Amino acid sequence: MNDIDILVSEVGPRDGLQSIGSVLPTAVKNTWIRAQAEAGFREIEVGSFVPPSVLPQMADTAEVVTAARTIAGLSVAVLVPNLKGAENAVRAGADKISIPFSVSETHSLKNVKRSHEQMFEEVRRIAELVASLDDKPHFEAGLSTAFGCTIEGPVSEDLVVRSAERLMECGVAEVGLSDTTGYANPEQVKRLVRKVQSAVGKENITGVHLHNTRGLGLANALAAIEEGITTIDSSLGGIGGCPFAPGASGNIVTEDLVFMLQAMGLETGVDIDKLLAVRNILSEALPDEPLYGFVPDAGVPKGF
Amino acid sequence: MNDIDILVSEVGPRDGLQSIGSVLPTAVKNTWIRAQAEAGFREIEVGSFVPPSVLPQMADTAEVVTAARTIAGLSVAVLVPNLKGAENAVRAGADKISIPFSVSETHSLKNVKRSHEQMFEEVRRIAELVASLDDKPHFEAGLSTAFGCTIEGPVSEDLVVRSAERLMECGVAEVGLSDTTGYANPEQVKRLVRKVQSAVGKENITGVHLHNTRGLGLANALAAIEEGITTIDSSLGGIGGCPFAPGASGNIVTEDLVFMLQAMGLETGVDIDKLLAVRNILSEALPDEPLYGFVPDAGVPKGF
Repeated sequence: MNDIDILVSEVGPRDGLQSIGSVLPTAVKNTWIRAQAEAGFREIEVGSFVPPSVLPQMADTAEVVTAARTIAGLSVAVLVPNLKGAENAVRAGADKISIPFSVSETHSLKNVKRSHEQMFEEVRRIAELVASLDDKPHFEAGLSTAFGCTIEGPVSEDLVVRSAERLMECGVAEVGLSDTTGYANPEQVKRLVRKVQSAVGKENITGVHLHNTRGLGLANALAAIEEGITTIDSSLGGIGGCPFAPGASGNIVTEDLVFMLQAMGLETGVDIDKLLAVRNILSEALPDEPLYGFVPDAGVPKGF
Repeated sequence: MNDIDILVSEVGPRDGLQSIGSVLPTAVKNTWIRAQAEAGFREIEVGSFVPPSVLPQMADTAEVVTAARTIAGLSVAVLVPNLKGAENAVRAGADKISIPFSVSETHSLKNVKRSHEQMFEEVRRIAELVASLDDKPHFEAGLSTAFGCTIEGPVSEDLVVRSAERLMECGVAEVGLSDTTGYANPEQVKRLVRKVQSAVGKENITGVHLHNTRGLGLANALAAIEEGITTIDSSLGGIGGCPFAPGASGNIVTEDLVFMLQAMGLETGVDIDKLLAVRNILSEALPDEPLYGFVPDAGVPKGF
């Protein structure tokens, strides 16, 4: 991070691909990940270790991790729902392991069939596994539904803060805030980032995962950066489906985010022309999936 | 403005309709404007006084102004390109008259066939006309291409500041900043707003007109608000055409802007459910025009 201001963490191969019906062939995933790393990306979430029966799109995650590890300078991130997933992630050699923790317990019970206490216990066991390794992956917990839940509605900010504290106690290296539902607004992002920073220390919350479901993705990213956040997740072409379709993620579009940051004078390490070319890999491989973004169509400003 | 924090100035009937091929019947314009005022809007730019040969969509602006003036509490704004337009605007009884001044002189010469000195002289004459009236409309100059020009590329910030000062000397009541080309980024918005505030006084620059051509519209609006801007232009359904089509405006979508502001706890005076219903008037009258926006499709968050 020494030579960049903001780390744009590409989550398309995981958060994007898991949300769409098509299964992208392993070779195409590998080509995509390599091309995006060559465009300057330092971290890519390449898949998740979930049962193939649940998400067949992610069945080849171990293979994809293996291929991605050969790319110099790339932090290979994966998502895991539980200890078993973490064991697989460790075996594959992932550099970063993230586990989502739903602050809305209703959502947690529905999504992973675990209460908060059960989740804390699972996190503690993964932290023990990580601690036992010589070559330790970075282990992070993402506080999902932190900005609101489609089932519960508003989520208590105190509960977000207490959950962050508990997760740190359980042994994660870092917590992140996730706007799973696209409910966040810039004021809330600032307030909640500050509260969690106060509770766990600025160095233990460096990233946010925001959605663009209501069009506020980049405004929320700006708000987070203004509070000192240095890692922003986004997805190439906003892949993950139409932001207003049921079940869709509505991720922030990587191309637009990188443009905004570079235009603001914030170094991301990304070559935007190379990034825009990576998009072609996706559009050719997934001709029926809509790709989002304004900059890919409008181009960069004259003289940019 | 006493009971609201941010004035969302609807420019769809002018900036939106002038950019599309279809001519909206006067009766529909009137219905739209009345419905949007009833949703809580305090200012609507209802048209522009330009020759009908240039913009047939705006030929009925005097009639539209007459109808809009009967709406209690509504500031009826119009755009004028020159003194003749201003005379027509005064005759019709507009409450607010805006004239665009292209900071890129190349753009000015191409767009209105006038140099900067010719524009300053035109503005001075309009200011004299306004000063001679008992019932003075608010006369504002919008600094267009302030954030960059599709012909010249980058535009000198010093020139923006000097133009703002000259326009104030010519007698406008206020200047605004317009991102005509969709080139602005949040850092630039902040810097330029501060520079112009320093030059002409905070009270003499209260509004910005931003586009969403590269997806940064709401992030730029947030940046402007953080610097004390209190009036933001936007267009219902982002009307004005596809943001990446040639000649399209790519306006900020009113529905998304109002949602962001209200979610942040900034009062706009707008009832968002009524606003979303106004959209139906447009979609029925202009079935072939795409309407933009995320909130109209995603809905507001549960418990909002």
